[in-house]
Amino acid sequence: MLLVLDGSGELYRQLGRALRTAMAEGRLAAGSRLPSTRELALQLGLSRNTVLAAYELLRAERMIEARTGRGSFVAAAPARRGAPPAPVEPLPAPSMRAARQRALPPLPLPWRQPGVRIDLQYGEPLTHVAVFTAWSRCLAQAAAHLEPGYVQAQGRPELRAQIAAYLSRRRGLVCTAGDIVVVHGTQRAISLLARVLVDPGQTVVVEEPGYALARQALFAHGAAVRALPVDAQGLVVERLAGVDARLILVTPSHQFPLGVAMSLERRRALLRHAHEHAALIVEDDYDGEFGIGAGALPTLSALDGQGRTIHVGTFSKSLLPSLRLGYIVCPPGLRRDLVQAKRLEDISCAALEQQALARFMAGGGFERHLRRTALELRRRRSALVEGLRGLGERVRVQDSGSGMHLLAWLPGLDASALAMLIDDARRCGLALHPLSAHYEQPPAEQALLLGFACASAAQIREAVGILGACLDRVGPHRAP
Amino acid sequence: MLLVLDGSGELYRQLGRALRTAMAEGRLAAGSRLPSTRELALQLGLSRNTVLAAYELLRAERMIEARTGRGSFVAAAPARRGAPPAPVEPLPAPSMRAARQRALPPLPLPWRQPGVRIDLQYGEPLTHVAVFTAWSRCLAQAAAHLEPGYVQAQGRPELRAQIAAYLSRRRGLVCTAGDIVVVHGTQRAISLLARVLVDPGQTVVVEEPGYALARQALFAHGAAVRALPVDAQGLVVERLAGVDARLILVTPSHQFPLGVAMSLERRRALLRHAHEHAALIVEDDYDGEFGIGAGALPTLSALDGQGRTIHVGTFSKSLLPSLRLGYIVCPPGLRRDLVQAKRLEDISCAALEQQALARFMAGGGFERHLRRTALELRRRRSALVEGLRGLGERVRVQDSGSGMHLLAWLPGLDASALAMLIDDARRCGLALHPLSAHYEQPPAEQALLLGFACASAAQIREAVGILGACLDRVGPHRAP
Repeated sequence: MLLVLDGSGELYRQLGRALRTAMAEGRLAAGSRLPSTRELALQLGLSRNTVLAAYELLRAERMIEARTGRGSFVAAAPARRGAPPAPVEPLPAPSMRAARQRALPPLPLPWRQPGVRIDLQYGEPLTHVAVFTAWSRCLAQAAAHLEPGYVQAQGRPELRAQIAAYLSRRRGLVCTAGDIVVVHGTQRAISLLARVLVDPGQTVVVEEPGYALARQALFAHGAAVRALPVDAQGLVVERLAGVDARLILVTPSHQFPLGVAMSLERRRALLRHAHEHAALIVEDDYDGEFGIGAGALPTLSALDGQGRTIHVGTFSKSLLPSLRLGYIVCPPGLRRDLVQAKRLEDISCAALEQQALARFMAGGGFERHLRRTALELRRRRSALVEGLRGLGERVRVQDSGSGMHLLAWLPGLDASALAMLIDDARRCGLALHPLSAHYEQPPAEQALLLGFACASAAQIREAVGILGACLDRVGPHRAP
Repeated sequence: MLLVLDGSGELYRQLGRALRTAMAEGRLAAGSRLPSTRELALQLGLSRNTVLAAYELLRAERMIEARTGRGSFVAAAPARRGAPPAPVEPLPAPSMRAARQRALPPLPLPWRQPGVRIDLQYGEPLTHVAVFTAWSRCLAQAAAHLEPGYVQAQGRPELRAQIAAYLSRRRGLVCTAGDIVVVHGTQRAISLLARVLVDPGQTVVVEEPGYALARQALFAHGAAVRALPVDAQGLVVERLAGVDARLILVTPSHQFPLGVAMSLERRRALLRHAHEHAALIVEDDYDGEFGIGAGALPTLSALDGQGRTIHVGTFSKSLLPSLRLGYIVCPPGLRRDLVQAKRLEDISCAALEQQALARFMAGGGFERHLRRTALELRRRRSALVEGLRGLGERVRVQDSGSGMHLLAWLPGLDASALAMLIDDARRCGLALHPLSAHYEQPPAEQALLLGFACASAAQIREAVGILGACLDRVGPHRAP
């Protein structure tokens, strides 16, 4: 049976369209039996789930029918060819929030790109077989002792206790299980905090450059988002003068994306400002686990004597993004409001991952994983840094020595030349990502944000080779 | 070592306090070694996690210190006795939303109650060993094929395809994977929909009586919540005249808590109203899986030709509440806004449960579970109905023959007499729950909402016996 996938959109939809065409053209006669999902998956080299999804889609459209024990058959009269409707006329925005959302620019999300062999993307963390094995075991054990009922909105006590102990041990942040609120990752933490702490119209300060998805969530909530510059010491706190910020969102331990650590002076100044102006601070510690360790400065929460700092952490970078678990360390005065909001919004996080993670942390598996990962990250980082140094002064490396990404500034290269370079690299099977995606205003200088968590040292060396070749080719297009 | 738990609050906190007292009284001398968590758990008959949590708590407070390989020891100088601070002075509400939340009455949540042998609660579904085994297997398999990366905000395609096919098969709701948005359960669906569809200040109509947690989420969002009465045909649609409702939240297939099914006339009238007044309808199909099957009326979404109905379903009642998975069947015109909101709010749901659930549904395990559960629910229902009939006209049974709860009206019993009866029953080890908890305005007549999913037929018969005895005792207190 000839099935041509048109290559647009999700695979299972492509397959669905191909099958529909085959029916329309009579190559699949009404009443004839379709190949089993397994057969077709083998034939087309697709995953069985994809074929399954395509069949379910056609079944839902009444194009095919399942006869138990006998497989799927083309429906007698392929009715309702219309469904699913072609891309619909969007309605006018159904709410002010929807209107704000529609005004947002598209996001640079870390989806894998087709035809790319090496992707120096940032976002997905380093994962190795060992952690999968250990983590899967914890999940399986938790699944065997699954608690059916509803879970505490604040999160399971044993997990909160593990997180609190971990933070005291590793981040010098003295807190107890009662201070922790378990949430579905950093994005959830920020959207929840915005809802509980910021009225629409109030000002929220973010860093420029900064984490686009957080900025967008705050804007969608209705906050007046002000992006203030970051220098070698972190957020330029003086620029807060006269801004009347209700909430200040910072990444002090490892500024995203620039990688600088906020200086102790700036941390003190920021806390002073928050205290004097009744502002609150959200400290997003997105990859603090892979900080420079002993030499690291105390977190804002640890320095804060006034209960104005809300510390946010995630397991997306330290374990798995698909886990969707993170936490908020909440000053006592705000806890009740936050937990109530969490309950009203989604009751609680799923029990299974919480049980498994508490087990993983209690058994020491989590910190073993962190140590192993930090080691491997060091290897990959030095492979990348050495490689880039080899490219001479066409590339200026900015490496914080911490986290899982660094910056490669490209002096004299303008935005269009960089775009050409990125296209060129993709044709060579290498995905590169511009730093400019994380700026609200286009930056003066161009740089690449190079993540090294998802490529082996060997791949990184190959990637640098490709980058070098692309730089040679783009050479003549450099801005004067 | 003498440790007295004071019985207030979470167990691990009670143990923490008991240990702190023992240290204060010198029964645990500074520098002395604490029993291992395993030892202490055995001694006190507590779970090891509880002891672990208590130790982590004291460790975080620097009351005890862990010496690797040697166990936990009482800190030299039990510093910072203050932490954690005694219940703190709550701050003024940090936002309008927080203020609205604080104005809400406390919720009747289905937490298990201490000292209760039988709880005829509503909320937690029927679970049996078989489904745990099957489901744990799916989870373990999914864990072994865990996908590390970020997940589509809309939900994993293979799960959406399974849900769409399931809905077409079982609920006559023709939709495709593209129409489904996977969310963290019904509560999440309602809070997300409110955010995308309703501006603060706009009117949302809910049912009286109705689902309190939904009402509260809508109020917290800032909607003007109007509760309109329900009669034997469902929501009294005529009462919508002049209300200017933006959103109408109904439970047509099995009204919660009254159990009536909305008549076809009312469904048509409701859709007509929504169309004429540009209102939207949320159809909460919270336990449709256990509906009366063949005889059931078409869902509002199936009847709706205008794309004004948003169908919401959950796996909390059909599988496990702790799973925190549900779905929205979204009209095409609203999909983009909803998915974008979902992404900005929490990126996506966890991959594992989605992978496992798609597997569970594709393998037929889910519907096998539904069939088995429906059978067992029938047994338990008839045990309850027969038992209640035996109590004579002191109890008027209102049973929809569907779902997992029914109502026992208690003619002539007033609210205070009912409260006494409920206390009396609890002293006998039986937890009962008043229907009045689901009303916004206190109802004229008193009834018990009796859930029969979490008690065996034998327990149910015993429960009815206790109820009968309590009714005898409360007799003299009946209202004239």
